[in-house]
Formats: sequence, C-alpha cells, structure tokens
Amino acid sequence: MSHGKQFTLYSHKIGPNGWKVAFLFEELGLTYETVWLEFDKNQQKQSPHIDLNPNGRIPTIIDHYNNDFVLWESNAILLYLVDKYDKDGKLRLSNPNDEYLQLQWLFFQASGQGPYYGQATHFISHHPVRVPTAVERYQDETKRVISVLESVLSKEEWIVGGKFGLAEIALFPWHDIAERTIFPSGTYDTAKEAPHVRAWYERLKERPSIKKCWAEREESVTAFQVIEKVSLAHKSLEEASKQ
Amino acid sequence: MSHGKQFTLYSHKIGPNGWKVAFLFEELGLTYETVWLEFDKNQQKQSPHIDLNPNGRIPTIIDHYNNDFVLWESNAILLYLVDKYDKDGKLRLSNPNDEYLQLQWLFFQASGQGPYYGQATHFISHHPVRVPTAVERYQDETKRVISVLESVLSKEEWIVGGKFGLAEIALFPWHDIAERTIFPSGTYDTAKEAPHVRAWYERLKERPSIKKCWAEREESVTAFQVIEKVSLAHKSLEEASKQ
Repeated sequence: MSHGKQFTLYSHKIGPNGWKVAFLFEELGLTYETVWLEFDKNQQKQSPHIDLNPNGRIPTIIDHYNNDFVLWESNAILLYLVDKYDKDGKLRLSNPNDEYLQLQWLFFQASGQGPYYGQATHFISHHPVRVPTAVERYQDETKRVISVLESVLSKEEWIVGGKFGLAEIALFPWHDIAERTIFPSGTYDTAKEAPHVRAWYERLKERPSIKKCWAEREESVTAFQVIEKVSLAHKSLEEASKQ
Repeated sequence: MSHGKQFTLYSHKIGPNGWKVAFLFEELGLTYETVWLEFDKNQQKQSPHIDLNPNGRIPTIIDHYNNDFVLWESNAILLYLVDKYDKDGKLRLSNPNDEYLQLQWLFFQASGQGPYYGQATHFISHHPVRVPTAVERYQDETKRVISVLESVLSKEEWIVGGKFGLAEIALFPWHDIAERTIFPSGTYDTAKEAPHVRAWYERLKERPSIKKCWAEREESVTAFQVIEKVSLAHKSLEEASKQ
C-alpha cells in the first residue's frame, strides 16, 4: 500500500461501527489510513470494498503487516487488534474468566444493542411509511438495553474486569446515538433513568481516543444536519401516531 | 448442583439460540442438564434466571466445574466451551488467522443473521399491526444474508478453515427458520437461489449432534403448531398488503 501505514480501514463518516476500530487504533498507537465510503453512492457494495468483504458493510481492515490479512465485523477486528498488537497489555484482561465475559458483552453489543438501535433509527428516519408501533418497539428495546447496562454500571465503574476496555469501545458509538437521536427531545433522560450509564458515557466522551475521533465525526454530523433531520422525523411520527 | 452434571443450561424449546449450545455439548460429549424456561410466563426475566443474566434472554450456562462460572450470549458460550473443553481439537482451527475469521462469522451471525431473521418472524407473527413494508424489509435482508453465505459456500465446503465448526453451529438454527417460516410457501427456494447454502444446510441436518437436538425441538414445533400458525400469518399479511 502506497500510504505506508500498517492498516487500511474502510469506514463511513457517520455510521457508528467504523469508529470503534478508529478508537482502538488511537488507543494502541497503530498507524492507519481511512478510506471513507459513500453509502449514497453504494460504494460499500462495489469494488474494491465488496471484493474484500462480501457482506458489503463497514468496517473492513487490511493489515499490511500480516500479509494483507483482511478482516471485517467491528468487534472481531477489536479482538484481533488487542490479541496481536496490545504489547503493553493496555486493554488486556488479567483474569481468564473475564476474557469470556468480555466476549459476552461484545456479543450483547453486536446482537442486542447495535441492531435494535439501528432499527430505531431506520423506522424514525428512513422507512417508506410511518410506523409508530415499530418506532415504539425499538425505543422500548433501547431503554431495556440501557437498563441492562445500568444494572452493571450501578455496581462497577467499567463493564468488565475493572478497567476501560473493548466493551466500552464497542458500546459507545450506538449509546451516543441513543442519547442524541433515538428519543424525541425531552422524552427520555438517562441522567434520570440510568444515572450510572450517563456518568459512564460522560467519562467515555473525555477519553482522548474517543474525544479525538468523535470530534472528527461531529463535523459530518453537523454538515449533514443529522440532528435537525431526526428532529423533523420525530415530529412527523408524532403527527402519524395521532391519526 | 444436585443433577451432578457439568453444566446447567437455561434454554427454550423453540427459540433458536439455546440449541447452538446443546449442539456443542453433544459434539464435545459434555454433560448438561437443561432448564426449560417458559417465555409466556416470562420466566426468563424472573429469578433464578434474571439473577444470573441481567439481560433476561436465553441461553445462560453455569459451569459447575469452573466454580459455577456463569456465562450468557450463545456465541460467547461456544467460544468458551471450545477454548476450555475441546481437548481433542475437534472444532479447533489450526491456522491462527482462521480464529479471527471465525470470530468475524460469529459476529456476522450475531449481528446480521439472528436479529434480522428475528425481526422478520416478529413482524410476520407478533407485531400488533400488520406492516407489510416491515416484513418485506426483513425478508429482503434474509435473502441478502443468504446470498453472502452463498458467496462463501460456492467456493468452500465449510464457512471457516475447511472444517465443520462454530460458524456452522451458530448459523444453523436461524437458517432452518429462514428455510421453513420466513417466506410464504413457494415464494423463495434456496435450492434455486442459493444452491450451495442449501446443500450445506442438508449436510448440517444430518450431523449427529444437530440431528439429535433438532428432533427434540421438532416435538415442540409440532405441539405448538408453529408452521401452521406462521402460514396463517403470511395469509393475513397478504390480505393486508392488498388493502
């Protein structure tokens, strides 16, 4: 690769999952070049990306220091990077059982948080017809997932093993979306409903790796007027549910 | 535990995810006692299960040979069991990169297959109102996921590392649901649309561990008239989409 960095990362400026990998690259001080794919041009389902990843979703990485090894699925990438490149054990866990609890929370994020929050955003902003019962279903599931996190964070400072780790990195992006766009303004406040989750989220926003990457994402969130568009979508749903 | 077996498995007779763990217990010859939870009595969200698993979803295991270690999320449990108890390397992979490709496919199953096929079944049979556009969304996604599997299985006999493994164990239950209930009878045939996936599915049905467990599940599928009820739901959706 002509860019001379260890990794190529295929990602998207607003989509949450690619940022998990960027957070970890920053944490571990690894060098990477990001290729930003444009979803409105369907680039994720075209060459060169689709030749690397038949699933056509971001993120995908190429590790140029491991014979151009290609890997996709964000949480699999996180585990790969820590196993191979966390030389100082910054994010590694000392108790062997904790490694499996970490897997448990990574699968919880992948199966229980991401897809359901994603369906909420789909039915709020993108579905061809307004379906208030579907939006409600996924808003309720978002609250439920946050309550599961609250049950842990009310007893522990971090999700697994007493330290910041991959569970935080994986859970942060969709949690931020839940805080900012899944609920109409003023209708659900984690400071009241899940105060330990809220405190954890505030701590994560100050973590240097996350702070740096998230500021970069915010430029696109602002440029594409994401918050304003979602707010209008919530109003249109409110109208639809009155009919 | 008075049952004297190594594991307690909290599961559900029809839900797909608990069976993954049963398949692997059978593959590895591990002893287990299943506690069947009844979802219509909400037992998964009550003691004793909720005290073990704050997410209130099956499966959950207790490993009585590891100080009653508790673990949930089916794919995390699969990885734990192979790491600790696959003494003969029956399901272990020899190439180190393959371990990460296996993680990739397990996360693909957990994030891309299970939740979307699950939303299809929800909108077909359980949503309070008929939403044909939502059913179509998840049927389309089911077809897309199957086409991703076809792209691999048209070149390889198994998903990862040239042998039957955890990817197969994780993908089988929801794939069976896709074959039998997500599409109205006669409208989508994997034998035509994804022939290599179909051949792989037929091979998996003959795998002794899967065959044994799936026959046990079939008794409940028959008793609860699952296929008949879904068929009626498809008819009611067809009516709704004509309106």
